Amino acid sequence: MPTMKAVVKTKPELGAELQDKPIPKPKSDWVVVKVRATSICGTDVHIYKWDNWASGRIGAKALPQILGHEVAGEVVEVGEHCKRIKVGDYISAETHIYDPGDLTSMLGQAHVGVHMKILGVDYDGCFAEYFALPEIICWPNDKSIPPEVATIQEPLGNATYAVLGEDADVAGKSMLITGDGPISLFAIGVARAVGVAKIIHFGKYDRNMEIGKQMGADLQVYTNKTTGKERLEFVLDHTGGNGVDIALEMVGSQDSLDDSFACVRKAGRVTAFGVASEPTMPIQYNNGIVFKGCQIHGINGRKIFDTWYRNRNLLANGRLDPTPVITDVYPLAEFATGFGKMMERPRTSAKIVLFPERSEYEAALKRRK
Amino acid sequence: MPTMKAVVKTKPELGAELQDKPIPKPKSDWVVVKVRATSICGTDVHIYKWDNWASGRIGAKALPQILGHEVAGEVVEVGEHCKRIKVGDYISAETHIYDPGDLTSMLGQAHVGVHMKILGVDYDGCFAEYFALPEIICWPNDKSIPPEVATIQEPLGNATYAVLGEDADVAGKSMLITGDGPISLFAIGVARAVGVAKIIHFGKYDRNMEIGKQMGADLQVYTNKTTGKERLEFVLDHTGGNGVDIALEMVGSQDSLDDSFACVRKAGRVTAFGVASEPTMPIQYNNGIVFKGCQIHGINGRKIFDTWYRNRNLLANGRLDPTPVITDVYPLAEFATGFGKMMERPRTSAKIVLFPERSEYEAALKRRK
Amino acid sequence: MPTMKAVVKTKPELGAELQDKPIPKPKSDWVVVKVRATSICGTDVHIYKWDNWASGRIGAKALPQILGHEVAGEVVEVGEHCKRIKVGDYISAETHIYDPGDLTSMLGQAHVGVHMKILGVDYDGCFAEYFALPEIICWPNDKSIPPEVATIQEPLGNATYAVLGEDADVAGKSMLITGDGPISLFAIGVARAVGVAKIIHFGKYDRNMEIGKQMGADLQVYTNKTTGKERLEFVLDHTGGNGVDIALEMVGSQDSLDDSFACVRKAGRVTAFGVASEPTMPIQYNNGIVFKGCQIHGINGRKIFDTWYRNRNLLANGRLDPTPVITDVYPLAEFATGFGKMMERPRTSAKIVLFPERSEYEAALKRRK
Amino acid sequence: MPTMKAVVKTKPELGAELQDKPIPKPKSDWVVVKVRATSICGTDVHIYKWDNWASGRIGAKALPQILGHEVAGEVVEVGEHCKRIKVGDYISAETHIYDPGDLTSMLGQAHVGVHMKILGVDYDGCFAEYFALPEIICWPNDKSIPPEVATIQEPLGNATYAVLGEDADVAGKSMLITGDGPISLFAIGVARAVGVAKIIHFGKYDRNMEIGKQMGADLQVYTNKTTGKERLEFVLDHTGGNGVDIALEMVGSQDSLDDSFACVRKAGRVTAFGVASEPTMPIQYNNGIVFKGCQIHGINGRKIFDTWYRNRNLLANGRLDPTPVITDVYPLAEFATGFGKMMERPRTSAKIVLFPERSEYEAALKRRK
Repeated sequence: MPTMKAVVKTKPELGAELQDKPIPKPKSDWVVVKVRATSICGTDVHIYKWDNWASGRIGAKALPQILGHEVAGEVVEVGEHCKRIKVGDYISAETHIYDPGDLTSMLGQAHVGVHMKILGVDYDGCFAEYFALPEIICWPNDKSIPPEVATIQEPLGNATYAVLGEDADVAGKSMLITGDGPISLFAIGVARAVGVAKIIHFGKYDRNMEIGKQMGADLQVYTNKTTGKERLEFVLDHTGGNGVDIALEMVGSQDSLDDSFACVRKAGRVTAFGVASEPTMPIQYNNGIVFKGCQIHGINGRKIFDTWYRNRNLLANGRLDPTPVITDVYPLAEFATGFGKMMERPRTSAKIVLFPERSEYEAALKRRK
Repeated sequence: MPTMKAVVKTKPELGAELQDKPIPKPKSDWVVVKVRATSICGTDVHIYKWDNWASGRIGAKALPQILGHEVAGEVVEVGEHCKRIKVGDYISAETHIYDPGDLTSMLGQAHVGVHMKILGVDYDGCFAEYFALPEIICWPNDKSIPPEVATIQEPLGNATYAVLGEDADVAGKSMLITGDGPISLFAIGVARAVGVAKIIHFGKYDRNMEIGKQMGADLQVYTNKTTGKERLEFVLDHTGGNGVDIALEMVGSQDSLDDSFACVRKAGRVTAFGVASEPTMPIQYNNGIVFKGCQIHGINGRKIFDTWYRNRNLLANGRLDPTPVITDVYPLAEFATGFGKMMERPRTSAKIVLFPERSEYEAALKRRK
Repeated sequence: MPTMKAVVKTKPELGAELQDKPIPKPKSDWVVVKVRATSICGTDVHIYKWDNWASGRIGAKALPQILGHEVAGEVVEVGEHCKRIKVGDYISAETHIYDPGDLTSMLGQAHVGVHMKILGVDYDGCFAEYFALPEIICWPNDKSIPPEVATIQEPLGNATYAVLGEDADVAGKSMLITGDGPISLFAIGVARAVGVAKIIHFGKYDRNMEIGKQMGADLQVYTNKTTGKERLEFVLDHTGGNGVDIALEMVGSQDSLDDSFACVRKAGRVTAFGVASEPTMPIQYNNGIVFKGCQIHGINGRKIFDTWYRNRNLLANGRLDPTPVITDVYPLAEFATGFGKMMERPRTSAKIVLFPERSEYEAALKRRK
Repeated sequence: MPTMKAVVKTKPELGAELQDKPIPKPKSDWVVVKVRATSICGTDVHIYKWDNWASGRIGAKALPQILGHEVAGEVVEVGEHCKRIKVGDYISAETHIYDPGDLTSMLGQAHVGVHMKILGVDYDGCFAEYFALPEIICWPNDKSIPPEVATIQEPLGNATYAVLGEDADVAGKSMLITGDGPISLFAIGVARAVGVAKIIHFGKYDRNMEIGKQMGADLQVYTNKTTGKERLEFVLDHTGGNGVDIALEMVGSQDSLDDSFACVRKAGRVTAFGVASEPTMPIQYNNGIVFKGCQIHGINGRKIFDTWYRNRNLLANGRLDPTPVITDVYPLAEFATGFGKMMERPRTSAKIVLFPERSEYEAALKRRK
């Protein structure tokens, strides 16, 4: 049985191991890809650290399990009942394995569903040379998109969906984007690409603020050096006293929630993307929502495949360059360095990409110069 | 100077007095109507009781002030710069006196605005024989609509906007409506009229539950006889395990907020209409909004005049009959009885209409048989 | 090999034959249903008559082929790779067999697609005791919906999609509906159910006008007894001089197209549903579209499965009763009588339902009393 | 009585004259501006030439009349009932003087209306040193926008509305834009600014194709050197065989209409902006609209003031640079040279701006270097 290198979570504790594992075979409606690039998500870090969420959601019994779900690869084998993906296709993967029988799936809202499974959480992931996944979540990439960009389309899709909201009505509007994480930084770039006219960025780490600027933020405020009142005044000063048309909450902290509901203008929109630090959060309900007459769009995942389609077009035609957010690239074998970087605070990295194949790694290095 | 009878708030304490006041003259872009019917809103009750909200928002210095803002009347005089309303028009009034210079006014969202004034709060109201108001908030009624219905179009408009939300996409969907107040009961009728396919009503007062049923609720649950868990299970049982497509929060209590965010299905919509009992409320932010991928529509007032147009059409063509919610009618002079009814708990009334003119009162009584 | 009765198109000429055919077996992702009711569509009549469209689209080489695509039945067998439909499910069928690889399928617009196949046109149909179809187009019915109603959900879905358009924003608006065919008549009922406030119906056959009235038309005009100018004046007279908010073109004749673009108000919506009598039609482009600032929604098929979901809810909860449009029911063996009725002009029928099983036919007869 | 220089249409024949005219005084709800820049529209050319449209729409009896409606100026006087515009404001003007009593005005669709008046057509225009206009159509400019840009916001608004359509959902999509006129060229720039991912431009004049490229067209096709079939194939080749997501018809010729309905993909959108060469045009109704399931948005004017708000933001923040379309600038006194340029065919100009004041002209010249 042919084998491959894979980053495997073996024990319910911090860490993971590079092991030899059998190259997977596809089920009848699955495909197998040769991984060209894969990237580390916050979810992977939870699993790597084996925190409460990981032990509750995955559980020790599921181990060993291969990590990872952000991927770009070439299809090398397809199951006999596959319908649209072919050997040779260059694909990325939607993480949300929707159940076709869920009501949401039947109504064009497959990104949320009662019976949804998650790639890299409910199944073996893609931190490996080869990777098996259901055909229904495969997205054909444009060949012009390099693998380190193709793999980050999954979090980039979060950003695009968060920026566009349910209605994609953002052209010529003003927007607040909170946070230093890669998805906040991607969102700045997306907002710039899709004609948001004024982008105000709230963050706190120097390195990430710098990337935010590079991605297109017009104005930036350090949240760790200001009060909420000062931030609100700053926003009002730069929006004719009205507040922003759209506020993207992408942190989940009390401060960031308060900022977002305070800074949005009357009849504006708040994107609720950040996972809150506590399941129950105190919200300025009357003044922030009811009396403001504003809309909140809860954003989970990406639209399948509406968001993917827009991003493919933006990337393939050079409208959007997400590479400033990719701060580090490593060979897959150096995954531990990547995870180490991801866990540093203050943040010194944003998005980290891994390459199973040396030649892909070197080609990526060359493109980064 | 010709005078009229008017219900006047004279002192910063409970109550109001019937007084003789001069018949108002219109400013250049205002009109004066002869009041055919007027109705009591919760806001009037706050002012009548002179609670904290009233003393803070209006203040003792503003007194004496005539109460009331829900009205139907005939225009008897127009200012010289009026443009669309003519003497003889049969009108009702939008309560939100928008400032044409507000950004929201210029973007078609005049129902919320930074410089908005409120009829009956910032100006003399309509509990009187005659009433002056700005032309920009006048809405021409269809002559076929009787005055006791024309006057309640303002709260009915709240209900319609709450049911339709920002997008008016409700046909064939399921809906939870919370609350016993007149606007909840109106909302049931509107939901029925506009093709909501299944209406679940949560309330607690027998009389009002009965009216809810009469207005078209398919299923009802007493919130004072059930737990939140039981209510959620009930909703899931009647929606194929998914939850309702749309939940209308119209109470503002913690229980009702929790019910609404729990019972809405993934990718569904919550209407945030009820003014919360506290400015800051704890919300199930992650499970209720972010992970559900749902939308919240903060609803304040009514769309000017989109909501009015739809309601005029629904009423004039017999698609919607709000009269079961009108539980009591009185001559204007008996206003104190009306206010007394409004303050009773447990609730024994819903909407109360007052008539300055005896003949209008008697005609209304006849129609109610 | 077990056999079944089926209505088979055997020769490229008028007519069809009742024959014994093998009961089909499902492919791996298809299912087989026992047909409880099936109904005749205009497309079936084209094939029955074998007109130019039929000989061009299907072609003599495809014969023999079983007719029919509107169906309600019970699943008796499922292919091994089916994912959501189970034996015992009571289903109806979407006619548009979308290709999952089409761009439109991936964007939630699967009702139109470059590689779409049509049930009963590209495959054997359902005028038979048993019927095989792909799982992806199966829609689970509510058990409370009788089979003669479940089968007509496909054309009813056309009507619902035509009424709602792309945005489903119809509540409290006025609507013109043109035509006497079953889908026009269904549309009247849907419009009534979803809160269209004023419905003006243009038709020409007494029987069908009567059904239109029964379904809820407020006003009716005979197109064969009036001029276009008279019809426009009639519409303006009943819409405050503005024209209707929404016009449904459901005929395809020059007159009906002209009526629709003339009678819609400025900034209104025209639904383009009727297949035009010629591929190229002269349109009042400037006055009807550009200067009016109106929107045209081309409507083909039904939204998969958004329209189905709404209709199931409306039917199961008694909001919509389409049965007045079902003018005739027959045992399947009497299909020729049904086709004869369908071809009569002036029209004396609307929707015709056939039952393979005697007991189902008799139960339906009983429900019709 | 103080006088000013103005370009006056004096006789019902080709031409206009520079005359001394009294400086206008504002009516009670009008304002007067000192004109900083004004620009020539196709409508002005119709009036200048006094073609059939001009003699029918305006009529000889209305002469003499000052030409022009595109303007940027400083408010020097306001009528006593003005509410939001103040002396010193730097404004531009919406051309559509809506009637507040029109249904469309009350529904947020004031850009089209039954009783609408047109600036420069129904009233004296702005080709003058001073100009009077109703307050309701005044739009406050951002001070950072130079007058030659502020004046062309009116046709730029056409372009923005045409690109965004009714829903503003364009991010990451592909778009066909037809035509060489200034509004087509502006539309290319807007499309680029708001994240249209691929822009295909159809035109025929070298100079204007060059500007189209400068504004951001990705691909261009000469319509005078290709057949419709070749253009369709070109579009399919560059859109994965699907056609463009959105087609902007901005010419009005039969070829351009045919191109637009042929090149849009299934379930796509066509913007009907170009005024058709004949009131009645033959359209591929079945294949272009019905079977495609596409949407047509008739675009007239600009949204009041939604479009203005977005453009102000895009211009003030440097997201959109429309200056390449401004091919010529002249002192107002040289208006005849400008009109001459406008009438040349083949086109050698796009947008032409005139300056009543020498110093403004010179400042503009300096900015153009």
